[in-house]
Amino acid sequence: MRLTHFSDYALRLLIYAARHQDRLVTIEEAAGAYDISRSHLTKVANLLTRAGFLTSMRGRSGGLTMGRAPESLTLGEVLRVTEPDFASMECLGPGTEGASGEAGRPAELTAAIDAALAAFLAEMDARTLADLLPKGDMRQEGASEDEPS
Amino acid sequence: MRLTHFSDYALRLLIYAARHQDRLVTIEEAAGAYDISRSHLTKVANLLTRAGFLTSMRGRSGGLTMGRAPESLTLGEVLRVTEPDFASMECLGPGTEGASGEAGRPAELTAAIDAALAAFLAEMDARTLADLLPKGDMRQEGASEDEPS
Repeated sequence: MRLTHFSDYALRLLIYAARHQDRLVTIEEAAGAYDISRSHLTKVANLLTRAGFLTSMRGRSGGLTMGRAPESLTLGEVLRVTEPDFASMECLGPGTEGASGEAGRPAELTAAIDAALAAFLAEMDARTLADLLPKGDMRQEGASEDEPS
Repeated sequence: MRLTHFSDYALRLLIYAARHQDRLVTIEEAAGAYDISRSHLTKVANLLTRAGFLTSMRGRSGGLTMGRAPESLTLGEVLRVTEPDFASMECLGPGTEGASGEAGRPAELTAAIDAALAAFLAEMDARTLADLLPKGDMRQEGASEDEPS
């Protein structure tokens, strides 16, 4: 019972971009900062960009920046994109298993798990990306370290 | 984001035993009823027996029966035994990751996920195995179909 690595990386990459909103960030530096695979992070970045959570700037001095304000992006929104189970749960709803109670997962068990997952997601809906930033970390960092983009 | 197969099988086996409390059940029949692997289910049964949720009777006409009343066994209790993440979450608590926010999962993210998992577990703590039985299914089935044990 845990988030997929994909979701974990997605949230970390968003946190990284949100902490450095004064400049473009690269997948290389985020992968290095969190010590995670660059190739995995590239797939994550592509999905987050397609979802509009990140914006990608092309070119030599290109990189990623937030596509949404961290204060308005809930963790639940992110997980609905990155966790296939959450999307399918809400689309299919209960009752996709046989109701007879045997041959397959009993319907009552599916309903209990769905209720628990909904509680998990409600907690995530109550938090925004901004809530994940270290306190006092929403500062604009000095731009002197960066090339103008 | 889903329960392990191990937990899923554990809950199904408990449901099966709870539905047939008037007699001993076998791993073979439960595996057949739910179309799941008998070898996996054997490992599951061993853990559930060690935890006292099931009682194992040896011998030719042996089998499994409930070790706890379904009305008093919460799903949360079961998952704390079958899902390693839940036990470790409650033992370690937050703060096992670096607090610096980079190099590893940011502490604020760990805290958010832990809160959401706690909400999941609270839902499971609010339900007992008896809640998973089809309504009207707590009857004692006719013993005529079974050998006396």
